Parts: sequence; C-alpha cells; structure tokens
Amino acid sequence: MFDTFEGIFPYLVSPVNEDGTVREKVLRDLVNHLIDCGVHGLTPLGSTGEFFYLDWEQKREIVRIVVEETAGRVPVVAGVGCSTIREAKYQSKEFEKLGVDGILGVLNVYFPLKQKDIYNYFASIAEAVDCQVVLYNNPKFTGFEINVETLFELSELPNVNYYKDASSNTGRLFRLSNLVGDRMKIFSASAHVPLFIMMMGGAGWMAGPSCVVPKESVELYNLCKEKKWEEALVLQRKLWLINNVFQKYNLAACIKAGLEIQGFDVGGPIAPNPNLDQKAKDEIKAVLEEIQGVKY
Amino acid sequence: MFDTFEGIFPYLVSPVNEDGTVREKVLRDLVNHLIDCGVHGLTPLGSTGEFFYLDWEQKREIVRIVVEETAGRVPVVAGVGCSTIREAKYQSKEFEKLGVDGILGVLNVYFPLKQKDIYNYFASIAEAVDCQVVLYNNPKFTGFEINVETLFELSELPNVNYYKDASSNTGRLFRLSNLVGDRMKIFSASAHVPLFIMMMGGAGWMAGPSCVVPKESVELYNLCKEKKWEEALVLQRKLWLINNVFQKYNLAACIKAGLEIQGFDVGGPIAPNPNLDQKAKDEIKAVLEEIQGVKY
Amino acid sequence: MFDTFEGIFPYLVSPVNEDGTVREKVLRDLVNHLIDCGVHGLTPLGSTGEFFYLDWEQKREIVRIVVEETAGRVPVVAGVGCSTIREAKYQSKEFEKLGVDGILGVLNVYFPLKQKDIYNYFASIAEAVDCQVVLYNNPKFTGFEINVETLFELSELPNVNYYKDASSNTGRLFRLSNLVGDRMKIFSASAHVPLFIMMMGGAGWMAGPSCVVPKESVELYNLCKEKKWEEALVLQRKLWLINNVFQKYNLAACIKAGLEIQGFDVGGPIAPNPNLDQKAKDEIKAVLEEIQGVKY
Amino acid sequence: MFDTFEGIFPYLVSPVNEDGTVREKVLRDLVNHLIDCGVHGLTPLGSTGEFFYLDWEQKREIVRIVVEETAGRVPVVAGVGCSTIREAKYQSKEFEKLGVDGILGVLNVYFPLKQKDIYNYFASIAEAVDCQVVLYNNPKFTGFEINVETLFELSELPNVNYYKDASSNTGRLFRLSNLVGDRMKIFSASAHVPLFIMMMGGAGWMAGPSCVVPKESVELYNLCKEKKWEEALVLQRKLWLINNVFQKYNLAACIKAGLEIQGFDVGGPIAPNPNLDQKAKDEIKAVLEEIQGVKY
Repeated sequence: MFDTFEGIFPYLVSPVNEDGTVREKVLRDLVNHLIDCGVHGLTPLGSTGEFFYLDWEQKREIVRIVVEETAGRVPVVAGVGCSTIREAKYQSKEFEKLGVDGILGVLNVYFPLKQKDIYNYFASIAEAVDCQVVLYNNPKFTGFEINVETLFELSELPNVNYYKDASSNTGRLFRLSNLVGDRMKIFSASAHVPLFIMMMGGAGWMAGPSCVVPKESVELYNLCKEKKWEEALVLQRKLWLINNVFQKYNLAACIKAGLEIQGFDVGGPIAPNPNLDQKAKDEIKAVLEEIQGVKY
Repeated sequence: MFDTFEGIFPYLVSPVNEDGTVREKVLRDLVNHLIDCGVHGLTPLGSTGEFFYLDWEQKREIVRIVVEETAGRVPVVAGVGCSTIREAKYQSKEFEKLGVDGILGVLNVYFPLKQKDIYNYFASIAEAVDCQVVLYNNPKFTGFEINVETLFELSELPNVNYYKDASSNTGRLFRLSNLVGDRMKIFSASAHVPLFIMMMGGAGWMAGPSCVVPKESVELYNLCKEKKWEEALVLQRKLWLINNVFQKYNLAACIKAGLEIQGFDVGGPIAPNPNLDQKAKDEIKAVLEEIQGVKY
Repeated sequence: MFDTFEGIFPYLVSPVNEDGTVREKVLRDLVNHLIDCGVHGLTPLGSTGEFFYLDWEQKREIVRIVVEETAGRVPVVAGVGCSTIREAKYQSKEFEKLGVDGILGVLNVYFPLKQKDIYNYFASIAEAVDCQVVLYNNPKFTGFEINVETLFELSELPNVNYYKDASSNTGRLFRLSNLVGDRMKIFSASAHVPLFIMMMGGAGWMAGPSCVVPKESVELYNLCKEKKWEEALVLQRKLWLINNVFQKYNLAACIKAGLEIQGFDVGGPIAPNPNLDQKAKDEIKAVLEEIQGVKY
Repeated sequence: MFDTFEGIFPYLVSPVNEDGTVREKVLRDLVNHLIDCGVHGLTPLGSTGEFFYLDWEQKREIVRIVVEETAGRVPVVAGVGCSTIREAKYQSKEFEKLGVDGILGVLNVYFPLKQKDIYNYFASIAEAVDCQVVLYNNPKFTGFEINVETLFELSELPNVNYYKDASSNTGRLFRLSNLVGDRMKIFSASAHVPLFIMMMGGAGWMAGPSCVVPKESVELYNLCKEKKWEEALVLQRKLWLINNVFQKYNLAACIKAGLEIQGFDVGGPIAPNPNLDQKAKDEIKAVLEEIQGVKY
C-alpha cells in the first residue's frame, strides 16, 4: 500500500453501457496501457470519471476492477463524491476494504454550506479511513469553494496531505502553497498549467487529459523534477493545445472520444450528457495527432 | 388515481435518523395532519424533502409510507431528482408502481448541459410513466435554468401539464404563462409570492412552508379562487413573514425546526447540513406564533 | 414643484448625434407627446436614457431641455448616476437649480462596496438637495444590490420616499413593502410585472417601455387605481409582449428603435452599443402593432 | 518617445483632496521615487489609480503632472477608461498631445456587449492614436471578458502589441500566449503570479503593488530576465505576502495606505470608497516591514 502520491495520476473514464453495466475489459486494458506508459498512479471516479452520474453498484464495480488490475503496481486513489457525511464515510470505508491507497474527497452541495460544515464533511472522511485523503476543490462544477483557511485547517489532520484544485485561480494556489508548505502537496487539475503548479512545489498532475497523453505527461513531470524549466515550458506549450479543445466541450466526453480515437472502446458519456459531434471529435483527433506525431 | 393537481401541495420533510433509517411514525402523523388541515396534495422528495441527501432505499421507503398513509385522499406527487436519464426513468417507474399520482422531475447537473439535453431528460421521464410529470426549475440550487422555450416544447407532451418554479423571477413566469396558456399550469415555490402566481392563473403553491402553515395556506388559496384579491393580499402579507426568516437559513432545516416546534419529532437536517442554532429556532417560533395566533 | 410622484414615469431616451450634440427638437417633441398621452411624470437619464454613456455637458443639456419643455405640467425626476459622492452631490444640486422635481439616484461601482458605503452615497445625495430622491437598484447592470435593510434605513431620511427596483425578484419587493409600509413607495421597473407591484401598493411604473406604449401604460395604471384587477391582468398580458422582445436586446436600443418606428427621429444607441439589426426592429414593429392595433 | 514597454510598471495612485483637487507635490515625489527605485515605466489612471472615480479635469491634470515630472526617463502609459467610443478617442488623443508613450485601454460596460462591439471600442482607440495601446481585461470589476479570439484579432492592429490581464485565470493567458506568440506581449496584474507570466514570455508586471515594493519588484523582474527561476521563486513567495493582505480590501485603499506608511501623503480612497481601518493598515505595515526588512 502506498501512502505518498506524486507525479501523473490520470483521472480514469468510466466505460459503461446504456444499461448501466461496466465495460470491464476496456477498463482493464486502459489500466494496463496507462501503467505501461509510466503514469505514477490511477484515479477512478473523478470528474472525468463521471462520478456524479454513477450509482453505488457501478462505482464499487469500477474501483474493484481498477484495484484488481493495477495489482499494486501504482497507487489507486478513488473518488468519493457524496452529499452526506453518512454516505461519504460508507463509500470511503468500502473502497479502503477493496484496497485503494487513497480517497479523493469531493462534496456535492445543494443547499449552501458554511466553511465549518465543509470542514466537517472532509474531516469525517479522513477520520473514517486510515489511508490518505486527497481534497478536491472544483468551484466551477460544485458551486462552492473550499477556502484557503479551511484547507489549512484540514491539512492539520494526519492523513490529509494532498489537495487537488480545479479552480482556474493559480494565484490562490500560490497563496495556499506559501501557507501550508510541505504539509499539504498540491495536484494540478487541467484548469491550471501543470508546469506552474509543479514549479511552486506541487505534487503533480491529476486530471483527465493525461489519459490520452500519458507518455507526454510523464515526460513533462520528469523535466520538472529535473528542474529543466525551459524544456518543460516547450513541452507544456504543446500539451496545452489539448486544453484549448477540451475547454469547449464536456470534459468526460472529450476524454472518452480521445480514447476511442486511440482504440479504447470506452463508449460515450452518460445521458443526458450528449456525445460529441463529428466536428468536435475531428478537432480532438487533429490535436492528438499534432501532439503525438502519429496518424490515427 | 388523480391526474389534475391544484391548490396547496406541501413539500414534505424527510425525517431520518442519523443511521439513515426513516422515522415512519412521525411521517405518517405529518401526512394525516396536513390532510386534516385541508391541503390538496402532498409532495415528498422535493428540495425541502432533502432529495439530494437521500439514497434510493430511503427515497423508496419514504414514498411507500406517504402513499400508503395518504390512501388516495389527496394526490401524491413524488420528487425524482437524478443526474442520469437511466436512473430517472427507473425511479419514476418504481414510484408509479408504488402508487404515486405524479412525478416531480428534477435534474441534477455537474457538467453544463444544452437546452436540448435538458429537454431529453425531462421528456424521458414523461415517456417512462403514464402519470403526470411536474417539471421543476430551481436555478439557485441546481445551477441551470430550463428556458421558457424548452418549457413550451415540453408542455406539448401529453403528460407534462405542470411546472413548478423556484427562481425568483416572477416576470419570467408571466411570460411563460402568456405563452403556454392552459396547456401547462404553474405552481409557485416559496421564492415567488404565491398570490401573484395564482392571480396569473397558476395552479397553486407547492413548497416547504405550507408544511408549517397548512391551514393559512389553504385559506390563501381559497381567497384566490374566489377572486377576493384584496383579502388575499392581507393574508399573503402576513404569511410572507415566514419567508423573511426562512430565506436566511437552510430551508429544509427551517421547516424541520418549525415542525419540531409544532410537536412533530422530525429531527434535524441531514449532515453536513447543520442544525439551526437556538436564535434561528426562536425566530421561527416567533413568526409562527404571530401568523397563527398561538403560543408554542 | 411636485413632491409626490405616482403613476407612469417613462424613462426618456437620450437622442444624441455621433458628435455628441443633443437632438433638441425631437427631445422636445417626445416630451410633449408623452404628456399628451397622459403620463404622470418624466424621467430623463435613467438606464434607458443611457446615463452611463453621457458626459456632464450632455446630461445638463438634456435635463435643461426636458425641464423647460415640460414647464411644470408633470414632475421631472432626473437621473444622477455617478461613482463618487462629490460628483453625485454636484450633479444633484445642479439639476435642482435647473428645476427638476426629484433626483433618481444611481450608484456606479468598480471596487465592491459594503452596505454602509452604499448608504453613505445615497444619504449624501439626499442631504445635498431639498427635493425627493428616488433610490434606484439595478443589480443586473450595476453589479451590486442595495439590501432591504439599507433601503429601510434610507427610508428614514425625510426626502427619501421612493424606490425603483430593476431586479427581477418580486418577492424581495414584497418583503420590502411589508417592512417600510407607506414610508417608501415602490416603482416597478420593466423587470417586474407592474400590475403586481401596483397591487402590493406600489407607486407606479418608471421605465423605458412606457415611452413607446404611453397610453396603454396609463390605462393599466388607471385600472389598478380602480382596483379592477382582472381587467388590468388582461391589459398587462398584452403589454408584456413588448417585454419578451426587449429582454433579448439592449434596452435603450429597443426603445430608440420603437420611437423611430413611431416617427421620432431619436437615432440609435451610443457606440460601442450597436444599433439593432433589421430583424430585431421588425420584431419590435410587429409587437407594437399588435399592442396598439395600428400599422406603422 | 518609447514604443516598447517591458518590466515593472507601477499603477500610480491618484492623490486627490476631498474637494477634488490633485495633490501635485506628492504625485511628483512618487514619480521620482519610483524611477529612482528602478521601475521601467509608470501607469497613471489604472484601477489602482481610481480612474473610475475621477472626472476628465482630474485625469488630465494627473497625466500632465506625471508626464512632466517623468520627463522622458521612462515610458508613461496612461489609462483611458470610458464607456463610449467618442470619449475614449477624445481622451486618448488628448493624452497623446500631453506626451504619453502609450494608452492603457479600459472599457466600462453597463448594457452587455458582444465581442465585436468590444473589438470596435479598442480598435477605435488604436486608430485614434499613433502610440501603443495596451489592452486591459479586468472581468472581476468590469463584468465582462475580452475573449482570447478578440484579443487575437486586436493583436493584428499595428499599435496593439500589449495586453494586461487582471483575471485570475492563468491558464487562459497561457492559451493566449501560445496563440499570439510575440505579436502581443502580456503584462501580469496582481491577480496573477508575475513570475509565471514572465516565465511564459510575458512583458512584465503592471499593477498597484509595485508602487509600495518597487525595488523588490525590479529585482524579481531581473531574476526572471536572467532565467534564475528558482531564486525568482523564493523572492516571489515573499512578495506574495502582500497579495494576501491586499485581496481582502479595496486595492486602491491598500496601496494608498501603504504609501502613507512609507511617508507619501497621498490621502485615502475617493468616497464612497471607505478608508481602511487601523487593523487593515497595521496588517499592511507588518507585511511591508517583513518584505522590506525595515521598521516603519
């Protein structure tokens, strides 16, 4: 079991059929492919993993398959995105039993919460498990923000040493980084430029796009580790092309389309999220070809 | 089985224990109390019913109890708030089997949707059941708006004849009312002044507050039906006091606190939603006493 | 000099040439036309009057012309929309010298303000003049909201007895109306259904659309005064058609286009605000013809 | 006259008395102080310069003084923040006559604009003058965003080679930087981490805080020019402390308070913007002392 996370952690997509069953074979293939490409960890059930669109049976099945297929080669950090403390604790414990190395904690809000309630939610997850909890902030889609002060307080819990941020406010992360120092390491989402997060001492990149550009993402991480900032910048510029396309559409649909293009039959997004049209798929294909220097 | 809905439809609270079990007795008591007070229908699993914080087992149990206890005295319209078409169809069909008279359709969104995707979600629910589907728009909490044009299109489906709106934009409802005429009737939420919605031909008031002021709500409805607008205005002004208090806090917590004050042991809101503090409860008590002319 | 305002107060457009000079003749014609149609007051330099796009020379010239041409037949309430207390006091005093009966106070904000700062701005205007000050809240365009509590406090000033609200939250106005009673009268903007505002005791309708439907607006007001609510509703429904069109485009451009259609050569909106295209103008023409039963 | 801008360009505060007169002496002192500290340019009438709160006479006076005192030692880029094309062209030309080296173009919006209207505004400024125009995007305070596509189009104009961004979305700037290459250089605002903007090839830092930490800002710039990224990071971390404090309050009030602490009698912000309370001033004093290793 791993208790430190660093590097490239692709957010896995969730390949499900229309009747809700999980496409087990392609999920196992994807796990192996990504590990072969050198990624440092796997994250099922993040935003890109459409956690918001899956029921508990589906979630458990996906985590079971990913943990089993990974077989300890790299850490698995599974998303727990709930609206209640009761459910979040339950799912976290069940995932820990299934063998995950960490929990990615997400909170879904309907009625607005105060920061102390938000603290309670994440602290309850941390208390419920022995493994590491990665906090996840995604104001654009969840409608609320975990304050820097709340993050600081949560970082004082023994198994809360990681934070993933999908806001687009890089300066806010710099402030947090100054405040928590090494007590909490920051993972970049695709809303930030990973290079800059790594430059400020971040742990790596945990996001969907590295599913489709795993080797290049690992290369970027390595350049940063070696402090070859200018080489990293050149690669980062190229990788950012993918960001331009993905920001126009549903992110999960984009990653699924990209994987289909690369030969993984993961299917489309879960309805009512619509499939991408051909034009969008062509854009994705073009940008993957440009980045990877291949023809799909 | 009822297929027309009109009048006062309280949004029932969901009384659950910390371990997740439903407090069956108080739920049955509440059903009987409200029907005795003259309400025209019951709506479990709306916003006030904390649908967003309940799992499927809890939801099914609550609907089962409410339908059974109501025993056909008034229509029961149960909330189906999901993020996928698959789950929404499943829950709607299950509720129909349990004997509900209508479905209150809610959509939870994570990745933003286009209007045609929103249309697909609600149309799929309508196709899945024979009963009426009440559309529910709550932009403040769900983060998106069902456009007037989409509502117009949905109103063309045979079993989509009702719409409940919890935006605070009354002029938008007036526009819709002009457009759809009698083909789709509008229910006021507590974000609107029910009197004005009824004046523009609305079907009634479907919301949490009527749980704690059921008799007064029914009286307001009756005055509107008799077109006694000025008497209705006087009563509406008094009833609006409750709104002032409720808007300051979590709505479900307020209704639950109000019911506790009135002797129904429904418990507090589901964590991490916090219980109201004593000051807030005192405000609610004071306003209920003022409206109802009693001492709790 | 008038010190009570009630009824229909059209927001006058500001007809200016590209070089910034005011089209005096058409402005005088419009004043006379509207008074002939029975309006109860005139409001130059509101939102529709493009106050945000005029310099001080232009503003003074417009108020001078409107006051002179009105010649005491109806009250003139001139808009003072500034970002500093110093400028707001200066403009208010100058307008008072020019003979206006009231000031419509608007606040332009860049750096966010606290409610007590907002209070200070409006209170400073009220202290600077002897005439009535109408407070103006337009959160959609100004980016901030005057709280109900701040409005209540401002209503305690001797010459702050009117409030115009262009939010779309009718319930908020109902709350305010309950709170201030007769001490502060509310004018509807076109974001509200004027009928409902008048029903809750409002003073009338102060907005751009009554520039192009003045007679019908006055008729609506009269029906409300006579408490003929159902007749008023029928007329209000018809008038609301105009709202549907205007909400799609720049409001000032719409009113200017409507007046051009009716023969007033007021020109287009001030650049960079674009002129409406022909399709939009045709929509406006069609709706005016439908409401007024004429052919333009 | 300068036509290239690079490095540290402090946003000057606008020291004005309550009666609106400009405090000429302290403004001249500040100009000399900043140039002595090594800044590469001066920017009167930016956000920090409270351009939104000054009338035309005040603006002209401030630019006149700054240009005269600077006397060609460094470039002066003056802010033109208007709501109309007519006024923006007029002010830009007048400033050019006064001898500025560049215009910082800002657009104030009331009625929402389309991107092509936004383009027209900035393009009109560029056509009106011979000097460079720096585009300024500040969505937080102006309520709209200049799209990356619009920026790209504007960058094709011969004298539009600079862009200052005060959004907090660093990834968006990275996308723009990829797109425009060297045709348009980006200045960081204090909403971004200047180090990262310079790393992606940015022109420098144009913002209020460098008024109070000019030497340290110049040092940061020099480290970036020499590609000493890790040393730059250490200094940037220290400088960011100031950001934490300033983000809590009105930015202009903060810079003015900081300058007062450093002995420049610039006065407080323009009412209704409130002066900082003592606690906030103490926070600013503490952070300046920490950064600069002195006692004020």
